[in-house]
Amino acid sequence: MVSVTTTARVPQEERTRAMRLRLLEATVECLVERGYSGTSTTLVSERAGVSRGAQLHHFPTKNDLVVAAVEHLTELRGAELSAAVAKLPHGRRRTRAVLGMLGDHFSSPVFTAALELWVAARTDAVLLAAVEPLEQRVGREVHRLTVAALGADESQPGVRELVQATLDLVRGLGLANTFSDDAARRRRILDHWADVLDRELAR
Amino acid sequence: MVSVTTTARVPQEERTRAMRLRLLEATVECLVERGYSGTSTTLVSERAGVSRGAQLHHFPTKNDLVVAAVEHLTELRGAELSAAVAKLPHGRRRTRAVLGMLGDHFSSPVFTAALELWVAARTDAVLLAAVEPLEQRVGREVHRLTVAALGADESQPGVRELVQATLDLVRGLGLANTFSDDAARRRRILDHWADVLDRELAR
Repeated sequence: MVSVTTTARVPQEERTRAMRLRLLEATVECLVERGYSGTSTTLVSERAGVSRGAQLHHFPTKNDLVVAAVEHLTELRGAELSAAVAKLPHGRRRTRAVLGMLGDHFSSPVFTAALELWVAARTDAVLLAAVEPLEQRVGREVHRLTVAALGADESQPGVRELVQATLDLVRGLGLANTFSDDAARRRRILDHWADVLDRELAR
Repeated sequence: MVSVTTTARVPQEERTRAMRLRLLEATVECLVERGYSGTSTTLVSERAGVSRGAQLHHFPTKNDLVVAAVEHLTELRGAELSAAVAKLPHGRRRTRAVLGMLGDHFSSPVFTAALELWVAARTDAVLLAAVEPLEQRVGREVHRLTVAALGADESQPGVRELVQATLDLVRGLGLANTFSDDAARRRRILDHWADVLDRELAR
């Protein structure tokens, strides 16, 4: 009897985990397609193919759902970036490849969904309390990854500011990209930026 | 009789213009304080001290009001920047002063209100059609002003990309500033960026 109970419980836990994941992914998709104000728990449960009852059991309010989706987003963003860093080439074109990776990251649907949350959180104190610490964690993680990927030495004067400027630049490019495809302009700017960065890091 | 009609009409036109301006300014304030989704025509008319009837006469829908506010914002942004450029010092600290002006501009309430509109327009085709051409006009104007303020020569290779990168950098700094005060970090980054820009423009 004990073993039967155990094997029955494991698939149940897996089903629950899969259902939660479908709800979180549907929330991110909704944020990208309809924005924060166009995202509702009803829409998300329909899209995830999860009953209203089950959805309400796991995430009773829109805020619960969106906050869990922020955490999920944060993990997605970290995993995406780590995977991208591991594939970067070494040698002369390294800097441009790091910038390409950052540029892609900050113009991905994950950035768009995060942007919807940032802007909604600006005028929603409860959402802000959930988004801000996560955003700081992600910010530090992306900074650390970028320093490591560039092989930059932050003990040198100005290097930390240069890395931060690079991240603010790609954030600005990401924002410009959200309502029109800006890929060609982004490519030219990052081509040039890679040269500036190499000159400055070599000083 | 003719002269009486004329003098009576002029104050009426002025009153109408002042009322429209109050409605547009109240719309911008609402966008900053409550976001796009928290902005309603009722709230705006209350804040502007304008009757619902008069408000509906001038701007029948939220979209009419917000689109007119975007145009008003665009003019405000242009006027703010031109005024700031005229006050810039000349000489050695010029570049840092230009960056300070841009940094202030992209972290002002006007930027915040524009950000609310950009993000709302991302998932609202009617709003996008009104916001996009204005945003392009403002983008060109800010670029032109920056080139002139820096005394940069865009016929030199890479200079155009450097100016664009600078504007994307301050846009990214503006976004980072929207939900936490980022002034100290912004100052350090722009201090360093001014040195990089001077070195690159002197090449």
